[in-house]
Amino acid sequence: MPVRLAELAVRFGCELRGDAEAEVTGVATLQEAGPGALAFLANPRYRRHLAGTRATAVVLDPSMADECPVAALIHVNPYATYARIAALLYPVAAFGAGAHASATVERGAVVDATAWIGAGCFVGAGARIGARAYLGPGCVVLDGADVGAGTRLVARVTLCEGVRIGARCILHPGSVIGADGFGHAPDAGRYVKVPQLGAVVIGDDVEVGANSTIDRGAIGDTVIDDGVKIDNQVQIGHNVRIGAHTVIAGCVGISGSTTIGRRCMIGGMVGIAGHLDICDDVAVTGKTMIASSVHRPGMYSGTLHAQESRRFRRNAARFQKLDELAKRVRRLEGGGGAGGQDQDD
Amino acid sequence: MPVRLAELAVRFGCELRGDAEAEVTGVATLQEAGPGALAFLANPRYRRHLAGTRATAVVLDPSMADECPVAALIHVNPYATYARIAALLYPVAAFGAGAHASATVERGAVVDATAWIGAGCFVGAGARIGARAYLGPGCVVLDGADVGAGTRLVARVTLCEGVRIGARCILHPGSVIGADGFGHAPDAGRYVKVPQLGAVVIGDDVEVGANSTIDRGAIGDTVIDDGVKIDNQVQIGHNVRIGAHTVIAGCVGISGSTTIGRRCMIGGMVGIAGHLDICDDVAVTGKTMIASSVHRPGMYSGTLHAQESRRFRRNAARFQKLDELAKRVRRLEGGGGAGGQDQDD
Amino acid sequence: MPVRLAELAVRFGCELRGDAEAEVTGVATLQEAGPGALAFLANPRYRRHLAGTRATAVVLDPSMADECPVAALIHVNPYATYARIAALLYPVAAFGAGAHASATVERGAVVDATAWIGAGCFVGAGARIGARAYLGPGCVVLDGADVGAGTRLVARVTLCEGVRIGARCILHPGSVIGADGFGHAPDAGRYVKVPQLGAVVIGDDVEVGANSTIDRGAIGDTVIDDGVKIDNQVQIGHNVRIGAHTVIAGCVGISGSTTIGRRCMIGGMVGIAGHLDICDDVAVTGKTMIASSVHRPGMYSGTLHAQESRRFRRNAARFQKLDELAKRVRRLEGGGGAGGQDQDD
Repeated sequence: MPVRLAELAVRFGCELRGDAEAEVTGVATLQEAGPGALAFLANPRYRRHLAGTRATAVVLDPSMADECPVAALIHVNPYATYARIAALLYPVAAFGAGAHASATVERGAVVDATAWIGAGCFVGAGARIGARAYLGPGCVVLDGADVGAGTRLVARVTLCEGVRIGARCILHPGSVIGADGFGHAPDAGRYVKVPQLGAVVIGDDVEVGANSTIDRGAIGDTVIDDGVKIDNQVQIGHNVRIGAHTVIAGCVGISGSTTIGRRCMIGGMVGIAGHLDICDDVAVTGKTMIASSVHRPGMYSGTLHAQESRRFRRNAARFQKLDELAKRVRRLEGGGGAGGQDQDD
Repeated sequence: MPVRLAELAVRFGCELRGDAEAEVTGVATLQEAGPGALAFLANPRYRRHLAGTRATAVVLDPSMADECPVAALIHVNPYATYARIAALLYPVAAFGAGAHASATVERGAVVDATAWIGAGCFVGAGARIGARAYLGPGCVVLDGADVGAGTRLVARVTLCEGVRIGARCILHPGSVIGADGFGHAPDAGRYVKVPQLGAVVIGDDVEVGANSTIDRGAIGDTVIDDGVKIDNQVQIGHNVRIGAHTVIAGCVGISGSTTIGRRCMIGGMVGIAGHLDICDDVAVTGKTMIASSVHRPGMYSGTLHAQESRRFRRNAARFQKLDELAKRVRRLEGGGGAGGQDQDD
Repeated sequence: MPVRLAELAVRFGCELRGDAEAEVTGVATLQEAGPGALAFLANPRYRRHLAGTRATAVVLDPSMADECPVAALIHVNPYATYARIAALLYPVAAFGAGAHASATVERGAVVDATAWIGAGCFVGAGARIGARAYLGPGCVVLDGADVGAGTRLVARVTLCEGVRIGARCILHPGSVIGADGFGHAPDAGRYVKVPQLGAVVIGDDVEVGANSTIDRGAIGDTVIDDGVKIDNQVQIGHNVRIGAHTVIAGCVGISGSTTIGRRCMIGGMVGIAGHLDICDDVAVTGKTMIASSVHRPGMYSGTLHAQESRRFRRNAARFQKLDELAKRVRRLEGGGGAGGQDQDD
């Protein structure tokens, strides 16, 4: 589907420099683009590839427009603009309405006439599948779960009893929404299972990555607000609440009953303890452990970076005695004798 | 199903203060409870909500009973008592016996007449499904695997060849029991796959969370003892052995051939290296790395907590030279010249 | 299938000491082996079990052969030799060709006549399934995906649109190849999804563990070269490239656009940031964070190990002020006054 640059400029609010009648048919990186391809430049680290590009047009920032050797679609947010153009050039495949012959739709399920239920899917009693929703092969929607309009379960997604998914969400393969939270009451050296009676409520425009898991609440619901984006293999415990437009990178774990604010950015492999409050606009760098509540917006870190092992081990061995080292420094400063009080304890 | 407080007190061994004829029909938190609801107070952090509760009754500890503004079900273990009452009020849905029309049960499988095989399930040759076992939609039980009496595979669980699951277990969606362990022998710059010939043996009353994986043994079995509770996205390597009534929080990884004792508590995202012995009654806080055996019960930690990034990075930069810093302190103490021996190395 | 030691020695290039006519029928550990069993000794930590073994034969290194109380199959690489013998003694079960009655193969899929499509599988339009490929129960192969000759999808594997898997690969249950990468462009406090237009290309002889995920490229492909071995619950982001014969242990996360060299060994729970270059022959110990490119082969580490919690917390508290401590040492050394410049900053 070739599109004229003039049309892209108008549709997405870009300033256009170059041949308005030129057409693009697809996207490519600056280095690999050839005739007919649209490229973009958002990350300054790739600026060096601009001069040599053979793309038909490049989406970029006004500050870089003068360097562009080909047609330029200029926008203050080139990455978002690129994303919108790419979505136009590569539309999601259309799908028919109805159900594959191998799907099971239990009596009492309510499936909109415009939805598609894929091969081998199971839709339980009382489940509701909204308009234009799409269930790819092998999805399981247990009793009473609710899938909003235009939401897409790519394949092999599991929605447990009574979970509610908003509109225009995308759930990737292997994701499990609404399994029991981890609740076990100790009793005389054993554990008694605590029934997990809440649900999971997911807003609109949420994306959940492959093999991610979001547990149902113990009492009351686990809540994911509108526009939250969750990467692969993220684990979200029971009764967690995540504010709108927060993004969570891969392999993050969030323990039960923690509340995370809006517009947060949680880096990969971050761990967040339970029963905490994280305010709006908090960024956490990868692999950090958050063990207490965060009440001030900003960026937080907490993991050491790799060194050559031999060198790291020497430092780590010193860490194991860091408290003693600090006390030795205090003594050198004359701050205390053998039995003295260490002021900075 | 309304239940009288008198009946709850008798059945669960509570002291009752208040109207013995009052009935409860469900549970709620202290803050959200209304008439007909039972609440509980176990975590002192929620004590402040007791005075204002509108619950019909509260399960709590004797020490807090005097503060309870409504009927009190008093027990030294209010959380476990709450769990038992909740299980009574919200029984697991009954299920029929037999198999869904879309299920595949291979010739040579032995399925108890009281078990249920859900939609789209596969049960391989030689597999055994015990009395009152429940397989939700999309489960795969490969040849020769064994599911104990009353065990529940919620949905989309995979049991590989020959694994054995005890009685009354719960396996959540996406869990995979008995995939090959990670065994590859290096040989001239490549790897030769080491056949994984053992199985996985899981005891009674074990719970395995969503998308958790437990690998089969290389030679001999991987063993999970009775009453072990495993949260979501936990990875357990080949030939690991986990003692009875140990609990493992989400995203933990345990490398091959490690043995963990009984009644341990492993926090979220903990990593445990291979070929270790962890004794009984060890607690490990979240995100800790266990790299050597633990022979003494107690609590172990090893991860730094987040700071504001700017501040953390300064400290982390100092860590990279901590060994040198310690040597400088030693020199200040007069313990050695430039070429001197550092006593605390 | 009993095999004579003489045959094993010839077939696998071992020196044989002992009864060439003796037969083995299976494998066992040194401690548990009885008559008819073959054991091996590769890890010196198990040398103490050699003297008492009741195995019929032991595969071991020349340096340990003199201590072997039973027949010895001597090879400089006993572990790889054991692996090859075990594969001979325990061949992978043969399978028929064709498709299970409950499988769905869409019009336009090309399935080799020697391949097997298991129960409940879905094979989309334009997908290609190669010779002797095996799809266990519940696999989903979306449109245009390609499965190479002799490749085995154990069960419940998902291949998304257009991914290409080489020959003789093994993909374990729950693995998801080709889900969308995590690409979202910020725009006025929200995010615009960036279409993920590349594929995943996996070479020959690759193994992917249970519940691991490998995302499709944003533009261009994610590439896993020949012989790479990936353990369970590993997450590989979009446009990552992994060189041949690299091994990646469980729970590792690799962020987008990072390139990893050949013959690397990545320990469990390691996190690798995005847009990095890791050269060939790099080893990373478990739980390390790699936050910058690595240009020199060698071993890298970066995680602290557990201590008793009380002791660890004291050290961690000192870490939070490590920068100040270093400055105090500098002052003690006479390197600067209150306002002085700290030379080692």
